[in-house]
Order: sequence, then structure tokens, then C-alpha cells
Amino acid sequence: MNLSRRDFNRLTALGLAAQLTPALATRLVAQTTSDRKIGYAVIGLGRISNLFMAGVQNSANSKITALVSGHPEKAAMYAEKYGVPKSSIYTYENMEALRDNKAVEAVYVGLPNSMHAEYTIRSAKAGKNVLCEKPMSVSVAEAEAMIDACKTANVKLMIAYRLHLEPTNLRAIQLIRDGSIGKIQSIQSTYGFNCGAGEWRLDKAMAGGGPLMDVGIYCLNATRYLTGEEPSEFSAYAYSDPNDPRFTTVEESLNWISKFPSGIVASCNTTYGAPMEGYFRVFGSHGWVQATPAFNYDGLHLTAEFFKPGGKFTAIDEPNLEKNPIDFTREADHFSNCVLNNLTPVTPGEEGLRDMKYIREIYRSAGIKFS
Amino acid sequence: MNLSRRDFNRLTALGLAAQLTPALATRLVAQTTSDRKIGYAVIGLGRISNLFMAGVQNSANSKITALVSGHPEKAAMYAEKYGVPKSSIYTYENMEALRDNKAVEAVYVGLPNSMHAEYTIRSAKAGKNVLCEKPMSVSVAEAEAMIDACKTANVKLMIAYRLHLEPTNLRAIQLIRDGSIGKIQSIQSTYGFNCGAGEWRLDKAMAGGGPLMDVGIYCLNATRYLTGEEPSEFSAYAYSDPNDPRFTTVEESLNWISKFPSGIVASCNTTYGAPMEGYFRVFGSHGWVQATPAFNYDGLHLTAEFFKPGGKFTAIDEPNLEKNPIDFTREADHFSNCVLNNLTPVTPGEEGLRDMKYIREIYRSAGIKFS
Repeated sequence: MNLSRRDFNRLTALGLAAQLTPALATRLVAQTTSDRKIGYAVIGLGRISNLFMAGVQNSANSKITALVSGHPEKAAMYAEKYGVPKSSIYTYENMEALRDNKAVEAVYVGLPNSMHAEYTIRSAKAGKNVLCEKPMSVSVAEAEAMIDACKTANVKLMIAYRLHLEPTNLRAIQLIRDGSIGKIQSIQSTYGFNCGAGEWRLDKAMAGGGPLMDVGIYCLNATRYLTGEEPSEFSAYAYSDPNDPRFTTVEESLNWISKFPSGIVASCNTTYGAPMEGYFRVFGSHGWVQATPAFNYDGLHLTAEFFKPGGKFTAIDEPNLEKNPIDFTREADHFSNCVLNNLTPVTPGEEGLRDMKYIREIYRSAGIKFS
Repeated sequence: MNLSRRDFNRLTALGLAAQLTPALATRLVAQTTSDRKIGYAVIGLGRISNLFMAGVQNSANSKITALVSGHPEKAAMYAEKYGVPKSSIYTYENMEALRDNKAVEAVYVGLPNSMHAEYTIRSAKAGKNVLCEKPMSVSVAEAEAMIDACKTANVKLMIAYRLHLEPTNLRAIQLIRDGSIGKIQSIQSTYGFNCGAGEWRLDKAMAGGGPLMDVGIYCLNATRYLTGEEPSEFSAYAYSDPNDPRFTTVEESLNWISKFPSGIVASCNTTYGAPMEGYFRVFGSHGWVQATPAFNYDGLHLTAEFFKPGGKFTAIDEPNLEKNPIDFTREADHFSNCVLNNLTPVTPGEEGLRDMKYIREIYRSAGIKFS
């Protein structure tokens, strides 16, 4: 039997999904009740948009039908690669013409953070459903405006928190909800990397902030989906090496603890100045669950131990064999399914807005200005 | 060749020591310039004193020569086991008579925390050098009084921070000092366990506090010896399950972040309500060093990765094959050597006092009263 890459990805997802409760497993599988594919205009053609387009190639209900870019040559190259007609290549200036392109029902916003709000709102006004990358925006006010614009235009808005659809993270959630580790006590989570000089993420005007906006947001969001609670308090310390020219407008590292209503405390670390694997470990009264890596595009690995009275324990060791860009396939599957069947996305604008508010709290505690 | 357990322990230590700089390696090896062995009176005959006595059996320069206990039968049993004459068994009431026992030059204080100060001070007044378990005391004032009493009596005082003499922890320190991981960014450290109901450590009157005093102090102390810096600021959240009868006087869990002068931030978690392995991970600009377990009596395991420009890296994986109670052998070796050669212990009273001051800050930030 020859399996296509798409079939293989799907089977892998289903294999992992078999360990999940039906409610969680259904998140992984598009439930398309139509043969119709949702056409996406991809706005911004950087690294993440490239991954999204590659992911859509394996999607059951999604296709790339337009591109929006400031780089005509790059746009022409991708148009050829993904079979987008030349007439469906737009610039940032003329993208309002998308309104008249019936082949486009949704957009994917893969731009630098500071452009998320503008292009989400312009897309909504053009009548398109919006799948927008995280972080949602560079301010709370922008996030609220994005939600309002999509409501007014009666289009759907999803923030691309791909891990809400990812089997290893869903499996951790399920083990915790099933009570395998008892009552959660605390969580550790880290994510960071050594950011190369000159990247737009080091420019606060484009990024809105430093590693917290880019990768620390994974730790923040994970502490929320792992606990199923909303944090009530934050305390944070930031640091920037005054002699490192990379960190003149954004912080180098940010470390915080957050308290949750049930008493859980999460400790998170993020940085642009050190190799720091995406990781979480949840400590419960009777065991722990860990994923490391936890947030990467592939190679995720879940381990756990559940202790029982008398010292006996059950150990779990589950590597995730899925390959990038399956996260993006699932993301497209899910959002297209929401559009096709008028469902609310698993991570709507409101989910992004919550994180923006928490990010504001973290920056406030660290003494960093955040608009 | 038949190796004695003592020889084997020593060879193991030397094997690990061979990876260390001379300055660190010498900590591991007693440098006795005398054939004389220092005689110890062991005060309190609980679990930790039992480990100390077992460790001393392998010491080159230490022996057990007296016992102080409130349990005559237990004392008689240990006296026979370790060859202590019946005439050298004391009670808490008559231990001042130790003054006249020339076979006793030092004491080991292995009592509950609230008794450390009293028995350290009484021992000093009896002219004996004092090796006192951690935490040093249950208040800053007590710690200061202990230092003063030992100075006045002209005896040495060492707090039993055994990891300052432990090869895996020394190896981590050396890798960091050598610059293998670059500039330290942040540290994570955890230590906790599910404390059985009825233990004295759950009684604030005897313990002075909860898991922070007992096991969290390992994380606190590790962040100091790993960085070589003193923390300048603390922020902490505590939690106690109001329905768990174990936590009526001490906290269940305590989680804090601390800031160091160079910008390093440490995130630490401790608990009496969850299985939480002793662990640290130090994130540097060009790599990380981790020990897990990091603080146990044996089975320690160090791993590290050092990244280089271009993505190449060197990985380290060094299990420590030493067996408990070698930490206690080294501790006795070191303190006896200090007594024999008039040296300052690696962890004098002042080291314990610093931690007591930091513990006061952590409790203050968490809103917990600490005397």
C-alpha cells in the first residue's frame, strides 16, 4: 500500500488520537461535511507562511488561492509552487480587491506582530474569515479591535495556537484531566533561543516586545490549557544585557511566576539570549507529566510518572513521530471546518485577547512598558 | 585486589574528582596531616544521624565516640553498633558533661530544626566544634547567636550542606565557571516530596517552616553556588490546601523567583504535597547544564549541552555511581580536617546565616510569618 504524505500524517494523528477522549480526538480530525475546500489568501510570505502553505497541501478542506506580498518575485515563486493564478497575487496596497475574489474565503495572517491587527481588520472588512498568527497583536486595544471588526463583518477569527490541536499537548491535557497525576501543584515551562542580530523580532516597533511575545507566549498559553484555569496574579523579572546590541528595544529574558485560583503556581522562563528548549512539566500530588520538546513543530516527546500509595508507579514514554508541517495541516483543517460548518474555532480571538492581557500584566510586573 | 568499601568510595570520588580543577577536587579528599581521628558526639539519633554515623565508618579522620539521645534503648543499640562506650552515652539534660570527655572534639547536630540553635550553643559552650545539619536554625537571630557562641568558645562551626563537597554538583560549578555554557541567563530548580502525616517537619514549632526549610533550601543554596552570586530580590507565592490536615501550620508548596546582580533569574519550586525530584538546570548563552536527580544521597546524574556558532554542540552525560552515605563520609572528612588543621569549613555558619536571611525574604514575599 502506498500512503500519500497526507494519508500518513492523518494516520499518525489518528494513532495518537486513539489515546485521547473523543472530545479531544475530534479536534484533530477535520469533519468536513462538504467536498468544498476553503480557499486561503496568505498574507505575508515569510518562514511561517511557508510552513502554513506546505501544511495546507495535505489538508482535506483547504487550499491556497491567493497571495498578498510586498515582494513580487517571491509571490510569483510561491504562486507557481502552489498553483495560485497570477491574477490572485495582491500587494499590501491593493489587497482590498480580495473582496471580489470568490475563490478566497479566508486569509492567513503570517506577518510581523505589529501588522496583525491592521491586516486582520482589513481582511474582515473585505469579508474574509481570518486565521491570524500568534501573538494576536501588540496591544490589548488592538486585540479588542480585531475581535470587534470580525464580529461586525460576521467573519470568523482564529488565533493560530497550533498546540491546541496537537496530540502530545492534548494527551498531556487528558492525563491531567483524568486525574492521573492528582491535584496540580505547580508547573515549570521554558522556551527560548539565541536570536540572530537583525531579526525583526528584536525591533519593538514590529514585535511589540521580546521573547515573551514570540516564544514565552507558548509557556503562558500552556499553563492555561494544562491547568484549565485562568491565572490571577503575576510576578516577573526581566533582564537585558546592556552590552548586547540585540537588546536595545526588547528584553533579553523574562521570567515570571503566576498564581492560579486553585493554588497552582507556574514558573516560566523565556529568552532571546540562550538555547532553551520548549518544555513543560506539570507536578501533581501523585505524579508528573512532562513534554520536552513541548512546543516545536515536530519531535515532541511526552513522559510521565504516576505514583500510587506504597511507592508503585506507572511510567509513560510517548514520542510523537509526526513530521512538520502537520500542525499547520490540522490548523487549516480545523479553521476551514469552522467556516464550512459555522463552528467556533478552538482558539478564537478571545483566546488571543486573554493572553494579550496577561502579557500586559507580566510586562507591568517586570517594569516594561507595553502599550 | 579486594577493595574495602571505604577504598571504593574514595576511588569513586577520586575518579570524579579527576574531572575537576585542583581547587574543587581538594574539597573531596581529606588532607589529614595527622594520624589522629576526630571523635564526634552525635546529638539526636534520627534518620539523618544514622546516615552520618554510617558515613563516618568510612572516614579517614573521624570516628563516633559519644551519643546524645533521649531514647536510652536506641542509644544503647547505636553504641554497640559503632563501638561507643556506655559511659559516653549522654542525655539532653546531662550533655554538658561532654566538656570532660577528651574523646569528643566535635558534635554532629542531627536534631529537628528548632533544636539546632540550642544544641549548637550548648556544645560550643562545652568546648566542642559543631557540625550542624541544615537548615541552620528556625530564625535569623538564632543563626547569629550560633555564630557568636562558636566564636566566643573558639570552636569551629560548619553547616552540613553536603552538596558543596559532592562531585556532580562540583562538576556543574566547574563547567559553569569554565565558561562552557557562556553567560548564565536563568536557573530552574525543584525539590519536594509528599510528606507523610505526623512527621515533625509538618509542625512549624519544630521545623520553623514547611518544605522551603527542609528541601527548598537545596534549591536556594544551589542557585547561589551554581551562580557564585548572592540574590538581591525575591518574589514568592505559597499555597496550602485548606482541606489537607497536613498543612495547618506549615505551607504545602512554595514557589519563588530570585534575581541576581548580573541579571540571572532563578525559578524554584518546593512542596510537601507532590513527588518532585531534586533538580536544577542552568541555562547559559551557549548551553545548559542539568542535574537530575541533583540533591539526593546518590544516583545523581549530570547532563549538559554546549552549543557553538554554526549549531555544533558537545553533549555531556555523566552518571554518578557513588553510593550513599559517601556524602556523609566526605562531610566528616572535611570538618575533621578543618579541626585538625585549623581551616575554615567550606560551609561555615555564615553560609547558613545567609540562607536564613534569604528564607526570611522568601517567606516575607509569600506573606508567611517567619521569626
